[in-house]
Amino acid sequence: MITKEVLKDIIQPVNPRWKTSITKVEPNHLLTRGYSQEDLIENITLPELIYLLIKGELPTPNQARMLQSVLVSFCDHGITPPSTQAARTMASAGSPVASCLAGGLLAFGENHAGAIEISMKVMQEAIKYKNNSDLTHDLLADKLVNHYLDNGKKVPGFGHRYHKEDPRASKLIKLSYKYDCFGDHMKLALSMQELLWARKGIKMNIDGANGAILSDMGFDWKTGCGFFAIGRLPGLLAHVIEEKNEKPFKKTFSFEELSVL
Amino acid sequence: MITKEVLKDIIQPVNPRWKTSITKVEPNHLLTRGYSQEDLIENITLPELIYLLIKGELPTPNQARMLQSVLVSFCDHGITPPSTQAARTMASAGSPVASCLAGGLLAFGENHAGAIEISMKVMQEAIKYKNNSDLTHDLLADKLVNHYLDNGKKVPGFGHRYHKEDPRASKLIKLSYKYDCFGDHMKLALSMQELLWARKGIKMNIDGANGAILSDMGFDWKTGCGFFAIGRLPGLLAHVIEEKNEKPFKKTFSFEELSVL
Amino acid sequence: MITKEVLKDIIQPVNPRWKTSITKVEPNHLLTRGYSQEDLIENITLPELIYLLIKGELPTPNQARMLQSVLVSFCDHGITPPSTQAARTMASAGSPVASCLAGGLLAFGENHAGAIEISMKVMQEAIKYKNNSDLTHDLLADKLVNHYLDNGKKVPGFGHRYHKEDPRASKLIKLSYKYDCFGDHMKLALSMQELLWARKGIKMNIDGANGAILSDMGFDWKTGCGFFAIGRLPGLLAHVIEEKNEKPFKKTFSFEELSVL
Amino acid sequence: MITKEVLKDIIQPVNPRWKTSITKVEPNHLLTRGYSQEDLIENITLPELIYLLIKGELPTPNQARMLQSVLVSFCDHGITPPSTQAARTMASAGSPVASCLAGGLLAFGENHAGAIEISMKVMQEAIKYKNNSDLTHDLLADKLVNHYLDNGKKVPGFGHRYHKEDPRASKLIKLSYKYDCFGDHMKLALSMQELLWARKGIKMNIDGANGAILSDMGFDWKTGCGFFAIGRLPGLLAHVIEEKNEKPFKKTFSFEELSVL
Repeated sequence: MITKEVLKDIIQPVNPRWKTSITKVEPNHLLTRGYSQEDLIENITLPELIYLLIKGELPTPNQARMLQSVLVSFCDHGITPPSTQAARTMASAGSPVASCLAGGLLAFGENHAGAIEISMKVMQEAIKYKNNSDLTHDLLADKLVNHYLDNGKKVPGFGHRYHKEDPRASKLIKLSYKYDCFGDHMKLALSMQELLWARKGIKMNIDGANGAILSDMGFDWKTGCGFFAIGRLPGLLAHVIEEKNEKPFKKTFSFEELSVL
Repeated sequence: MITKEVLKDIIQPVNPRWKTSITKVEPNHLLTRGYSQEDLIENITLPELIYLLIKGELPTPNQARMLQSVLVSFCDHGITPPSTQAARTMASAGSPVASCLAGGLLAFGENHAGAIEISMKVMQEAIKYKNNSDLTHDLLADKLVNHYLDNGKKVPGFGHRYHKEDPRASKLIKLSYKYDCFGDHMKLALSMQELLWARKGIKMNIDGANGAILSDMGFDWKTGCGFFAIGRLPGLLAHVIEEKNEKPFKKTFSFEELSVL
Repeated sequence: MITKEVLKDIIQPVNPRWKTSITKVEPNHLLTRGYSQEDLIENITLPELIYLLIKGELPTPNQARMLQSVLVSFCDHGITPPSTQAARTMASAGSPVASCLAGGLLAFGENHAGAIEISMKVMQEAIKYKNNSDLTHDLLADKLVNHYLDNGKKVPGFGHRYHKEDPRASKLIKLSYKYDCFGDHMKLALSMQELLWARKGIKMNIDGANGAILSDMGFDWKTGCGFFAIGRLPGLLAHVIEEKNEKPFKKTFSFEELSVL
Repeated sequence: MITKEVLKDIIQPVNPRWKTSITKVEPNHLLTRGYSQEDLIENITLPELIYLLIKGELPTPNQARMLQSVLVSFCDHGITPPSTQAARTMASAGSPVASCLAGGLLAFGENHAGAIEISMKVMQEAIKYKNNSDLTHDLLADKLVNHYLDNGKKVPGFGHRYHKEDPRASKLIKLSYKYDCFGDHMKLALSMQELLWARKGIKMNIDGANGAILSDMGFDWKTGCGFFAIGRLPGLLAHVIEEKNEKPFKKTFSFEELSVL
């Protein structure tokens, strides 16, 4: 019998009222950011939808093209990134696809995909600071670059372990002009690149370029890692499927090798 | 000093040769599925890229449109799905964005997003079986539906806890005609729907519709959950950002309530 | 103003009443499985607590000793397991400790830690079947082993890629006698080992031994992977901390090597 | 045929030499922190093993008892923590046990289990600072408490949403005397508690108490969240198994409720 005493053990939530402005769910009807999902399914492009979901409003055609290029640019970097290695290691161990993809995202640490968030945060705070001062982009860039180099640190968004010149960054910079998504943050990034090129032979990387573009498009730095994840997930899936079609549980270490040592 | 003895403790891999056919990484150059990433960034659409990554070849314009609609249809279902609740719970606890997104994907269990994989597997095996027999789609559908109903089980890809008629499924079915991505799997699914509607008042859901479409487009059932993840990730990001802008660590249970019980 | 219309957008849960019999939470008081946590903190050993949490009752002294040995045996296997490699890869990428540990657990696929669950499931179903038949352990073992070998499959719980004789398994078998935790499942496993040793030169591994012991202790096969996780987590933490003290973002591939090929 | 051209596509790692001092793996032999695993399995207690894995050396009997109490104290807090809710949400969605446990750990954000790391970091840095000054514990505590309160922030390690007096903290403090694991960090924490009790009616919580104890035992603050994870994992497993025995995919929201609004 369910007595008052027994009920005490049944913990009851206090009307947690999760609020969301993203999607309204009604019987046989779904309204996302104010648009019927039936309409969206037929009429919106994927980059437009992503913009709509995160920003809450539709992009202009140029903004949609820009976001598409940003997301495409994150697509894949072979097996060199930690996220790809982690996801394939899990696939090789026989974990389900969703676990492998989740595992890939968990390798988005501050030294890997996290760089874009740090880069966006630094640029967004710098530009806010600039807007309340009479600094030029060049002077601001000088201060920032000196701050990092004087402390013996890498400048977030610049330099790449594999590429002297990251081919994705230069293309993205060009497209930011073409699609009219070029603003204060990219100006700052380009000033920083000029200094870093002169002093260290270092150029902007994909994180710096996309960080500047997303910032100029008005996205908060907290979304940076998320955009990277959205752009990279299809590539991770391709790797996971590829690995699942290979011999499971790769024997990466052998005793023959070990005993020779 | 590094002696032979010390080296014994250093475990050395036996040339694990991770092979990949997805992206070739060279200094200042990235070639994905045979295309320069610089070209892809400027010229490919996001759905085309996703198709290219997973299939290894470019889609036709109609296939690209179809895949876009499939991915858009996964976009969001408010706060009702376990994946959204999990991701927001983590965001509320102050976990990094990448962890929240990964956590969302970990709730893709067999009762949630996993359904699309099961649905695709069943349909793909059934159609393979049909191709080696003289069964019609209707007879095959009859066998399948009876198998589930006789065992008191739900038919994967049919019925929805919130929608008597899933608005996304009907739209997707129409588009599969329009974009010429309608084939054996969808025929089977529609036959099943006819039977289930007559016997139980149940219709195809988003998993069934997308499962049939992706199968007719030649995607292996193992990719099903991954496509759901790609389509849902932007929505999860929107929820995570929304939650991070609210009061942290929501107190969902209170003692006042508890002591009343 | 909050109108009825606005409220419609606020989704409200239907008193989801999460029930739990594990811990009763009251102001300044916590009661776990009927015991005050203050008492537990001072008086219970860690293996006793783990047994209590999962089983809902206290173990005998021998059961506690046995579970302790089982958990200790999972402690670590150097950098050879996928879970360790995944966790260290994430640590190297700069992910937080909790993400690295979670990532390690995500590599517990069916080819890695998942083996213990499969092994327990097979043994538990076999013994249930035996109890309703007049089969001996030897005959049952014969049927099982033939089933796997005839289909060219590995027998779950037997054989190890690194050890001809898994040193942990033999020790655990001995302790199952010593601690009086030896029963039907271990008898079956030993019969299987005899056959496999004669036919293939293969012995029981840690998954087979612990799977048999946990089954004889009355644990459901669904807990198998969880016990592995509990036993392995401290080792994963040690690896994560060790990796975080090394140079971040190890460059595991170089172009010099690549261009030589 | 494998030509030089084909090989170029096979990316080869440059002897990544993962070093580890934790476990030496040899055929039929495993040596962990210098001890044969066969010996450990029979002779070491679980808390001793955990200490050995993380610290690299064996604890004294008192240190082992202290660590055991610390780990037991993390055992469970019903369904109130985000980690438990996340893990059960995944279990309800039908995700594998390892995914549910991983998901639980991903909810260890800065507002949840992360607090112990922050608390340890603050205390360890404060004590280091004190050692190079002539501050007393009381003066240091005063500075710290003022810093937080003046900025309107919560003091990490103090206060609990459910307990006016966290029953676990008071017990742990007593045991730190009993087991002679009481040092500078606990002295500081007690001074802070005195001030916070007088000014705000707030006491030390489990994070503060365990953070001080682990710090006095010489553990780096980076291990804090990991110890929480080790202590909580058995409780999470109990919740996951409990949830998996309930009706799957709990319908937490209903339209009836929604339409009433």
